[in-house]
Amino acid sequence: MTPPALHKARVPLREFDLIRSLRRLCAGRDASLKRGIGDDTAVTAGPPGLDLLLTTDLLAERIHFDRRTADLSDIGFRSAAANLSDIAAMGGDPKYLLIALALPNGATARHVGELYRGIMAACRPHRVLVIGGDTSASAGGWFVGVTAVGTVERGRALLRSGAKVGDAIYVTGTLGDSLAGLALANERPGRRSRTAILSTRQRQFLLKRHLRPDARVTVGRWLVRERLATAAIDLSDGLSGDIRHLCEESKVGAEIDRASLPLSQAGLAYAKSTGSDPATMAATGGEDYELLFTTPIRLCGKLERAARRKGFRLTKIGTIKPARFGIQARWADGLKPLPVTSYRHFQSPRGES
Amino acid sequence: MTPPALHKARVPLREFDLIRSLRRLCAGRDASLKRGIGDDTAVTAGPPGLDLLLTTDLLAERIHFDRRTADLSDIGFRSAAANLSDIAAMGGDPKYLLIALALPNGATARHVGELYRGIMAACRPHRVLVIGGDTSASAGGWFVGVTAVGTVERGRALLRSGAKVGDAIYVTGTLGDSLAGLALANERPGRRSRTAILSTRQRQFLLKRHLRPDARVTVGRWLVRERLATAAIDLSDGLSGDIRHLCEESKVGAEIDRASLPLSQAGLAYAKSTGSDPATMAATGGEDYELLFTTPIRLCGKLERAARRKGFRLTKIGTIKPARFGIQARWADGLKPLPVTSYRHFQSPRGES
Repeated sequence: MTPPALHKARVPLREFDLIRSLRRLCAGRDASLKRGIGDDTAVTAGPPGLDLLLTTDLLAERIHFDRRTADLSDIGFRSAAANLSDIAAMGGDPKYLLIALALPNGATARHVGELYRGIMAACRPHRVLVIGGDTSASAGGWFVGVTAVGTVERGRALLRSGAKVGDAIYVTGTLGDSLAGLALANERPGRRSRTAILSTRQRQFLLKRHLRPDARVTVGRWLVRERLATAAIDLSDGLSGDIRHLCEESKVGAEIDRASLPLSQAGLAYAKSTGSDPATMAATGGEDYELLFTTPIRLCGKLERAARRKGFRLTKIGTIKPARFGIQARWADGLKPLPVTSYRHFQSPRGES
Repeated sequence: MTPPALHKARVPLREFDLIRSLRRLCAGRDASLKRGIGDDTAVTAGPPGLDLLLTTDLLAERIHFDRRTADLSDIGFRSAAANLSDIAAMGGDPKYLLIALALPNGATARHVGELYRGIMAACRPHRVLVIGGDTSASAGGWFVGVTAVGTVERGRALLRSGAKVGDAIYVTGTLGDSLAGLALANERPGRRSRTAILSTRQRQFLLKRHLRPDARVTVGRWLVRERLATAAIDLSDGLSGDIRHLCEESKVGAEIDRASLPLSQAGLAYAKSTGSDPATMAATGGEDYELLFTTPIRLCGKLERAARRKGFRLTKIGTIKPARFGIQARWADGLKPLPVTSYRHFQSPRGES
């Protein structure tokens, strides 16, 4: 599918190289630090029985969001949800957000209020409190810095590094919806003809998946409590990018079954309307904020039965392989390497915690 | 004194109004939240026997720093020090930083490395670890988001709200140095004539005070351990701005003795060379990152004796008064209100945690 031109990826630095070099620069440990740079969140000693999860993100106007296609309330919602999703990927219970804003000339208290209303709407279902912030001026558009703090049972955080050869790979929900929603948000009225076959409901579903994504906190907590996962990551860059982060940290490879990638009815209708390949859309679309996790084969039956009872949509999409296998996708006619980089419509290099 | 034009304050919103409105929006508590928006840091339940301190700041190019007068390493140092100073103001022990960067086109891994080297240099003396980060693109210059995490003995954090009528007001170190250092950094060679009387050493001292400020962690920890202070704040906006934050939170007034404000030899020499009033420079210069704290009269003797033994420079600069007194400065010819806003050369509204 054609990436919307507006949000062309602008990755200034090669991500893995940068993380490696920052890890070296920041080398140093203390007794209470359990996991530093390289996962969805850092892990440190927390209140009795708990570890503390800490993560930060900086979202920039014209890079991560566009005020022409999203109002400030949506931008606030997405900024908060992206960070709650990092806590969810560790199986954590999100507790607090700290918000640092830089506002361009002309921004008013009403604008800040709108942004905060979106932030609070993302926080409310998870009982997350905004406990601090900083607001200053910007000479270059809106910037939203979010730090999320969560807790998880001591020693039980789901790391990216826990996947073992033979583990099954699962994803929650459906993939590619956010990419479709972004494309719809960017459609100019005159160019809507191709996607005119989508129903209003399908269109609204895809826009909501893009503008107000849910962080999969409930599933993450359940995976930790029931000890059903060996590793996890949230899908922010897109499956083909994020599976790479997980494999890199776990020192393994992966085989992905393209035919199994779950799409929503609306996502399928969008792919059809634009002549896109659905599996490619699912593999490369970013910012769905679904969880990707790995589960030992012997627990798959238990996992799937329990998920059905709970009403969680989980799909097995592949298997962890040895590192030398690399990351390959199974097509009808055999295996092919997964594209090296995922398409990042809102450029947001992750992989640092 | 003439404010350097480059860093003209650009406060987009009235700070107190904004904080009040955010407090309303973010109303909500849970058992583990002890202090939210309105102090130097938020305070929540921490590891056994400890409270956790959390604070975040976002620094923007052309607002908080200028790459023409500070290299990236200095910018990193200052960004880290400003946040460590917030932890110091609570009497806390800083433990971790999380760094979120947004980089303009053309930024390279070498630039990021330079910035991180400054950050690490500020962290090292305090054994603070950088445990996480996020690096993304910016369409508008460099942005540095810093979140600092610290701990303090449970229930013992120095809040802004603890000052009592009659308490003495103290500051650490000397005031106005950073403002002088900034002005020196911004001097064009042709216009150096007025300050040519400063020795190289004086010049370097003032530049260092501006570019590489020390966070007063040791003094803050000592005030907590010895239970010598009732309230504290760090001087980021400048004395005349920050005393206002403390008085607002404590619901008190203050009398400041202008003649007592401590200046360094270099700061005095700078004031003389430019024909500035030293007390005005000390009262309005921002970003010295000294601590301002209040101590009950009966403990002043003990405080001053202990500080002398420890080698801490402390100066009594005034007294806490009832709220109706307002905030007034004692001049040779009587009391006058302190200017309502401090001059903010690097605009950085604080007062939110």
